[in-house]
Amino acid sequence: MEKDVTIYDIARELDLSPTTISRALNDHPAVNKKTKQRINEAAEQMGYRSNLFASNLRKQHTNTIGVIVPRLNSPFMSSVIAGMEKIANEAGYNLIISQSLETLEKEKANAKTMFDSRVDGLLVSLSYETENLDHFESFISRGIPLIFYDRVAEHNQCTSIVIDNLQAAHRATTHLIEQGCTNIVHITGNLKRNVYADRLKGYKYALIDHDLPFSESNIIVNSLSEEAGEEAAKQILKMKSLPDGIFVSNDTCAVSCIKALKREGISVPKDIAVIGFNNDPISRVIEPNLTTINYPGYEMGELAVKVLLLQLNGTSDNVSSNTVNLRSELIIRESSLRSKASSKKQAVFV
Amino acid sequence: MEKDVTIYDIARELDLSPTTISRALNDHPAVNKKTKQRINEAAEQMGYRSNLFASNLRKQHTNTIGVIVPRLNSPFMSSVIAGMEKIANEAGYNLIISQSLETLEKEKANAKTMFDSRVDGLLVSLSYETENLDHFESFISRGIPLIFYDRVAEHNQCTSIVIDNLQAAHRATTHLIEQGCTNIVHITGNLKRNVYADRLKGYKYALIDHDLPFSESNIIVNSLSEEAGEEAAKQILKMKSLPDGIFVSNDTCAVSCIKALKREGISVPKDIAVIGFNNDPISRVIEPNLTTINYPGYEMGELAVKVLLLQLNGTSDNVSSNTVNLRSELIIRESSLRSKASSKKQAVFV
Repeated sequence: MEKDVTIYDIARELDLSPTTISRALNDHPAVNKKTKQRINEAAEQMGYRSNLFASNLRKQHTNTIGVIVPRLNSPFMSSVIAGMEKIANEAGYNLIISQSLETLEKEKANAKTMFDSRVDGLLVSLSYETENLDHFESFISRGIPLIFYDRVAEHNQCTSIVIDNLQAAHRATTHLIEQGCTNIVHITGNLKRNVYADRLKGYKYALIDHDLPFSESNIIVNSLSEEAGEEAAKQILKMKSLPDGIFVSNDTCAVSCIKALKREGISVPKDIAVIGFNNDPISRVIEPNLTTINYPGYEMGELAVKVLLLQLNGTSDNVSSNTVNLRSELIIRESSLRSKASSKKQAVFV
Repeated sequence: MEKDVTIYDIARELDLSPTTISRALNDHPAVNKKTKQRINEAAEQMGYRSNLFASNLRKQHTNTIGVIVPRLNSPFMSSVIAGMEKIANEAGYNLIISQSLETLEKEKANAKTMFDSRVDGLLVSLSYETENLDHFESFISRGIPLIFYDRVAEHNQCTSIVIDNLQAAHRATTHLIEQGCTNIVHITGNLKRNVYADRLKGYKYALIDHDLPFSESNIIVNSLSEEAGEEAAKQILKMKSLPDGIFVSNDTCAVSCIKALKREGISVPKDIAVIGFNNDPISRVIEPNLTTINYPGYEMGELAVKVLLLQLNGTSDNVSSNTVNLRSELIIRESSLRSKASSKKQAVFV
């Protein structure tokens, strides 16, 4: 097994002192240009690990962007990452990705790994558990650009990229009300995170705007997984009065909920109209096809890297500390259409 | 903006020579233990980047495992990575993941990034384009464990983890034949990769074993994407004699193909029986539910990291250079069931 090449190996090879080697690799002024070149060439030939002795790492780009995601197992996150890859590739950057699995402990470990890997910038969507940004301080204090997307937090040196979750949820709930629903259940995720908290607000405000009562008992908070959708359906079927509408915070959970309701003889949308969130491919496979919010994940990924590159190139001090809002869209399909005549006018069929 | 701490900063702080600092951080015997401790403490306090001056990196674990995948956008790959995370977490390791996007160029860049990030080991599923393993030589020559999974290549120092693709495809094709199909189309991916080449063989051998003719014109090679499934359906509808069975190499493509066939008035399974591959959640949403091969992605991910850890702990020289085969399973659902009586006996319903 070959050992890694050290400055001592290079020193032996060239009959120079390790200090000279170290200085040359650090571009120290005390070493003359010709010697530096000789040392750099030898280092490269001998397979010395590049960048290892960088004295000022900020000058020496690794051309790597770190991405921390809660979980990779969703079409939404795949789209975001595909958008990131596109822009990163075009600019000659490589992405490395890690998952927090919704825990703070893993998110901290990820941040340390990314820092030790000397990423040029970091893109983060926060875990369920994250309460503060202390574990990103090493990036912020060194001026390594840090961008939050989707699940974001406020920080005066970081840009956040989001959709207007409140508005999207308001539009979805209003659509259900326009379809004649008066008793609407909302299924959503951990309310600590902006995305779910804002959707709950949007749902609530839409009810209020249409003089419908808001009831805590109509809110189901779960993990939004396939299994959670089955469970939510059971819970709904046990409710004192069966709801006539359900607005779910992702498509995975909405689809498994519809499947479970159908098995119990509930007709969707006749008995219960259902709306999801994300516009995952599965929303076009379930019968009836699912009304949902088109979440521009790909565009969000593209934009996150674009903003990061602007900051890396030092041309956008004025962009940071902003929140960038992307547009989302209600995609109306059969799962929510109870009054065809009234809705055709405003519907966007995709 | 804070600069990164260098050995010169530590030297200044402690009034010692940079050489002494460098030696101490490299655990050089010329520096006494007390001084080393003082230097290590100062380095830590000053936020010196850990491991940067490691003289023998193999001794200094980063507790990071690198993963290179073709694409992240599939439930199969998500399952693999979830299995990897589980075992890695339990052992105190963190994963960093990058995508080759099916190109050799990106796979090379990923390998370099992983090497420069000093991962303790690397798990790789190869891109469509990869022809040789030269770009992994830096890992192999340094004894950094390298494991291939799913899309693998032969190397006498690397373990490969696969399912028996030939057998799985043989079983799927045989099932179609038992359901009365005699003209079966096979839709698959790039035949350079073992997984698709082996499935084609399994399909072919099953035909031969049942005295059915094999015809090149019944093979459709595409990207196995949602769009590719639509295209394949169009191609099939134009065939001189309509096939009575289709075996597709993933569920995404099988589902979009079924949707397109249904739109054209084809009944599945009556007119054409369809089988997919992977057992993605979407296979239980499409109507009729899709017969498919259950691909144990989670178990594959777990096993890949387990084998890697054995090699890292130096306890398994005898394990390397092996190929490990995982069991897969045919899941029979409505999309292939044309003769209910005959198949009930042998069917595994899930």
